[in-house]
Amino acid sequence: MIIVMKKSATDGQVDRVVEWIESVGYRAHLSRGTERTIIGAVGDARGREQIRSVAHLPGVENVVPILKPYKLASREFREQDTVVRVGGVEIGNGSFTVMAGPCAVETEEQLMECAYVAKKAGAQILRGGAFKPRTSPYSFQGLEEAGLKLLKKVRERTGLPVVTEVVNPADVDLVEAHADILQIGARNVQNFALLKRVGQARKPVLLKRGMMTTIEELLMSAEYILSEGNPDVILCERGIRTFETATRNTLDLSAVVVLKQLSHLPVIVDPSHAAGHWKYVAPLARAAVAVGADGIIVEVHPEPEKAVSDGMQSLKPEKFYKLMEDIGVLESAMRQVRANS
Amino acid sequence: MIIVMKKSATDGQVDRVVEWIESVGYRAHLSRGTERTIIGAVGDARGREQIRSVAHLPGVENVVPILKPYKLASREFREQDTVVRVGGVEIGNGSFTVMAGPCAVETEEQLMECAYVAKKAGAQILRGGAFKPRTSPYSFQGLEEAGLKLLKKVRERTGLPVVTEVVNPADVDLVEAHADILQIGARNVQNFALLKRVGQARKPVLLKRGMMTTIEELLMSAEYILSEGNPDVILCERGIRTFETATRNTLDLSAVVVLKQLSHLPVIVDPSHAAGHWKYVAPLARAAVAVGADGIIVEVHPEPEKAVSDGMQSLKPEKFYKLMEDIGVLESAMRQVRANS
Amino acid sequence: MIIVMKKSATDGQVDRVVEWIESVGYRAHLSRGTERTIIGAVGDARGREQIRSVAHLPGVENVVPILKPYKLASREFREQDTVVRVGGVEIGNGSFTVMAGPCAVETEEQLMECAYVAKKAGAQILRGGAFKPRTSPYSFQGLEEAGLKLLKKVRERTGLPVVTEVVNPADVDLVEAHADILQIGARNVQNFALLKRVGQARKPVLLKRGMMTTIEELLMSAEYILSEGNPDVILCERGIRTFETATRNTLDLSAVVVLKQLSHLPVIVDPSHAAGHWKYVAPLARAAVAVGADGIIVEVHPEPEKAVSDGMQSLKPEKFYKLMEDIGVLESAMRQVRANS
Amino acid sequence: MIIVMKKSATDGQVDRVVEWIESVGYRAHLSRGTERTIIGAVGDARGREQIRSVAHLPGVENVVPILKPYKLASREFREQDTVVRVGGVEIGNGSFTVMAGPCAVETEEQLMECAYVAKKAGAQILRGGAFKPRTSPYSFQGLEEAGLKLLKKVRERTGLPVVTEVVNPADVDLVEAHADILQIGARNVQNFALLKRVGQARKPVLLKRGMMTTIEELLMSAEYILSEGNPDVILCERGIRTFETATRNTLDLSAVVVLKQLSHLPVIVDPSHAAGHWKYVAPLARAAVAVGADGIIVEVHPEPEKAVSDGMQSLKPEKFYKLMEDIGVLESAMRQVRANS
Repeated sequence: MIIVMKKSATDGQVDRVVEWIESVGYRAHLSRGTERTIIGAVGDARGREQIRSVAHLPGVENVVPILKPYKLASREFREQDTVVRVGGVEIGNGSFTVMAGPCAVETEEQLMECAYVAKKAGAQILRGGAFKPRTSPYSFQGLEEAGLKLLKKVRERTGLPVVTEVVNPADVDLVEAHADILQIGARNVQNFALLKRVGQARKPVLLKRGMMTTIEELLMSAEYILSEGNPDVILCERGIRTFETATRNTLDLSAVVVLKQLSHLPVIVDPSHAAGHWKYVAPLARAAVAVGADGIIVEVHPEPEKAVSDGMQSLKPEKFYKLMEDIGVLESAMRQVRANS
Repeated sequence: MIIVMKKSATDGQVDRVVEWIESVGYRAHLSRGTERTIIGAVGDARGREQIRSVAHLPGVENVVPILKPYKLASREFREQDTVVRVGGVEIGNGSFTVMAGPCAVETEEQLMECAYVAKKAGAQILRGGAFKPRTSPYSFQGLEEAGLKLLKKVRERTGLPVVTEVVNPADVDLVEAHADILQIGARNVQNFALLKRVGQARKPVLLKRGMMTTIEELLMSAEYILSEGNPDVILCERGIRTFETATRNTLDLSAVVVLKQLSHLPVIVDPSHAAGHWKYVAPLARAAVAVGADGIIVEVHPEPEKAVSDGMQSLKPEKFYKLMEDIGVLESAMRQVRANS
Repeated sequence: MIIVMKKSATDGQVDRVVEWIESVGYRAHLSRGTERTIIGAVGDARGREQIRSVAHLPGVENVVPILKPYKLASREFREQDTVVRVGGVEIGNGSFTVMAGPCAVETEEQLMECAYVAKKAGAQILRGGAFKPRTSPYSFQGLEEAGLKLLKKVRERTGLPVVTEVVNPADVDLVEAHADILQIGARNVQNFALLKRVGQARKPVLLKRGMMTTIEELLMSAEYILSEGNPDVILCERGIRTFETATRNTLDLSAVVVLKQLSHLPVIVDPSHAAGHWKYVAPLARAAVAVGADGIIVEVHPEPEKAVSDGMQSLKPEKFYKLMEDIGVLESAMRQVRANS
Repeated sequence: MIIVMKKSATDGQVDRVVEWIESVGYRAHLSRGTERTIIGAVGDARGREQIRSVAHLPGVENVVPILKPYKLASREFREQDTVVRVGGVEIGNGSFTVMAGPCAVETEEQLMECAYVAKKAGAQILRGGAFKPRTSPYSFQGLEEAGLKLLKKVRERTGLPVVTEVVNPADVDLVEAHADILQIGARNVQNFALLKRVGQARKPVLLKRGMMTTIEELLMSAEYILSEGNPDVILCERGIRTFETATRNTLDLSAVVVLKQLSHLPVIVDPSHAAGHWKYVAPLARAAVAVGADGIIVEVHPEPEKAVSDGMQSLKPEKFYKLMEDIGVLESAMRQVRANS
């Protein structure tokens, strides 16, 4: 923590700040510049919150934190990439994983057809929502337990591992019993009660960045899960909220690069929710490969115009087949790029 | 719903859109302009989601929703202002309600002192967090049940009704047994499982706008609570996330005006979390009176530099006394403004 | 400037950074913490840009600037409030100045009627655009020189000083010859060629914050004007761009408080452009008084539904009369608030 | 334009709106729904602004524009991609153009070295700023005319066409005499006086999106240039301002996809300014290829740590060589992707 004193700060005020820093168990390093006195406060994380209150002392202009607030999620804690294993699939091992399926589980037929399309195209994991967090209480809220049972059934028939969202701490056991990856949606990225609970689960967690979550906050949310003992967290960039309205959200592909530098956790991209329109999904998915993401999660629906939820952003099967081909071409290119480094 | 066809749309494409609209139980109104054909789709809310998928049909350029997605929260549903009654306090009756207290309940002494300051200054409701949703898993997470007991005790001794946050659906009964108003924090504004659960409670709910929540989405979150049967929702503007970093968040006081026009629910302001620094709290609280808010919720702490959480944004007692005087002066002014209308 | 080294930085890397700092004429202060070595770089502003490039050196994690980049605009440079004098009007002397008039000058009749309404209501300054920066090349671009002549004529007849926008460095002399205050619009806040040119003018400048401008950048833009020799800059908060679409922009009233703390320059508010709808203008204008602004600039039009530009956000005369009464009531209240401090 | 009436609107109010629409030369199409009456207003663009003022009439709830406000920039106006020709280079013809060079022209040696690196690596165009719009008046403002002369000299020696920024309408002739492409920087994207002036130039214009400019506004700014007679506009996405601070701006790659759909103009990407740090430049440049951009403009400097401006985001030559190889690999992949469509 760096404390910047006002230009007009007196020696007495500087002394009082130093005293106060020491009173909360930190050490103070004084550095007098031509225009400002700067005081470094060195100590461990426990005093971190209290130390910020030094801002109340007279003569203090500003308080600048220096250390990152997350540990287990950081590259410094673990230099090697974390690889999350689900069924036979490895996420984060340098290959590109595709999770595909409908926004919501609707019927057995719909889910089986999606799984068939996903498998035929070469996707490794099936997505599908049984609990749907919807902006409106009057919108379809998902098939809930019945939806989970369908997911399990289709998984058994097709061999595709399944990722599905959990929204209530009370449902974590149930979802864990039916699915292979527990998804935390963007709106729950700071639902800390839920994060703690999935941190106690034994299945990997797919953690989506919230629409207004900074990269640092996303890593702090991952830290909640990791610190409860679950090491298998997959981060997901899915678009942030900006002033631009031409797309549903603004996909922040730089976040993939920053996250992979700051953290050892795998990072995937959700182009469907980011764009909000199927027309934009394929180019963004290709860009996700080229930027170095570990995979995508993408909405596919046999008849998007009949989907009960998010039909506008779902790809039809033939578009998805083409996208999977293109992803293959770009993956080869990226292997060459990496080989040349 | 308005469907805007492309300039190049053929008659056959227009016909297919009309057909499709009718197939989901809506009626279609055709309107041919010089540059575009526009089709109005009229029906009830149930088809609302599916109708959007018309965007997949060839020739469609854009789909524009016309109706507001909330009903119970709207001024059209209920023209008169809702007044929420808590103990002897009425929120939303034209007066200005002040809720004050520490960010977090720390000790009995701290809470009693805060309550004493709040009461002496003329605040009507005591705030204090027992469950603290913190960005970091390593930060103080609140005294939890012990904190609730302290709140109840202090409420009994001082007669001040108490507002406190609930973060897990499983805790709603417990919090309801100890507090007078259940607070939903900004990070849980779209935690729909929690919203549904407090919608079944019999105590009023203070619903904070999220950092990334639009006004319409806030009203949809209120709709979740109202639609479960709880009519007593107090909305709270607490700052949104923008590119500006001089303040913790950007307090959106226009939202107060817009909300009071669109909805019958009372609207209060949290200047402490918005500003993130005690220096900015008093002017923003005064502005809240002048803009027509129904009250504020503000952080007060006897020794902010020793607070375990958010000390930087807490007012010291003497600053709070002055603020309460100023609020009184501005309230008189606003009574005159209203009398002149 | 603070240079934060990586946890893994070697002694050699630290030495090289220190050497490099000294090579650009700065002094280096070393501070070794338990987790990080931090190096303070002390020198004058000229090396400021180059010093940032230290980020390229191996072992450097982060570079944190400490000093504010503006000087003449800062409270530290000049502790007392700047009062800008225009005709008999003083802006920034503790009173509340109202600038009112149409968005665009349309005809002599329209302008005279606006001036009449403004004067009758007690506004001190007449606003009106002759050069209109419009998003569309097909929109009315203003009467240009003819509009300036009308402004001058109406000023002579009514005695009201006039504020009008200038958009091209080549027009500054012309505008200066006709108006009392030169306005720099939000879209030109970082048009540095224009800022330098009005910095050489002898009339005060009303500098609007851009939709995307941070508080610090606004002060840097003021610094451009001040550093060219023009001491009379009035800052204007007019709403920033956020994800919220219910209002045209989000009025950032906290910016008023922050600006008045960081700078000695007067700060006014434009509630018309911020809100984008006349319904929201009056409450926001009242809030501007209560938050401590030095005035407002507001759009008034005798027949808003016939205005050639921004009719939706213009107040009708009767609404403006009521607003001016309300502002008077709130000004009295604020005098009492200040007297009690 | 669609006018949505309030639920409570009377027949008389509906009649008055229809009357008013017809009074400004539009035709009105009435459509009565179960909850709302909707009125379509059909006419030409000239009445567009005035028609919005219908919002003032009693009973009107909302006014929704339907038509796009730009014409010449739209895909509807010109279906085929515009190809901009500069020297022997074609921008927008399906290949990927790389513009590279220093942020600012510093010395002849520096510029020659950059040009050498750019040419050796296979870049087609040399970038370099002679007029530098800087946030601070105390920062290096560019070599101005002397810089232009250096650019011309290096262009003659190397044969590389040159792109450089113009910031003042008064300098357009001068810049046009020395450079091949006139750049409008992000801060001048709505400097309409400047846009009109470069619209009269005979050299192509590289128009950067502002940090807070919507896609629609960017196209409106292009429209300013096109409507003055200059058909050669290259759009450039360079990052928008969001709440995220880990990168200087948030590169909005979806904007490339949306722009290419809405407009026939070529679209390039500036990963250097978006990211603000050289570490993030290469992955974002690769993503630009994969998303379908027509090129990039990227900062390269022989000794970034000695650059007078933006050194932190400049690539060193060896990193740039590797990037150019990688771009080649991805271009081949994209050719295959396109061939398969």
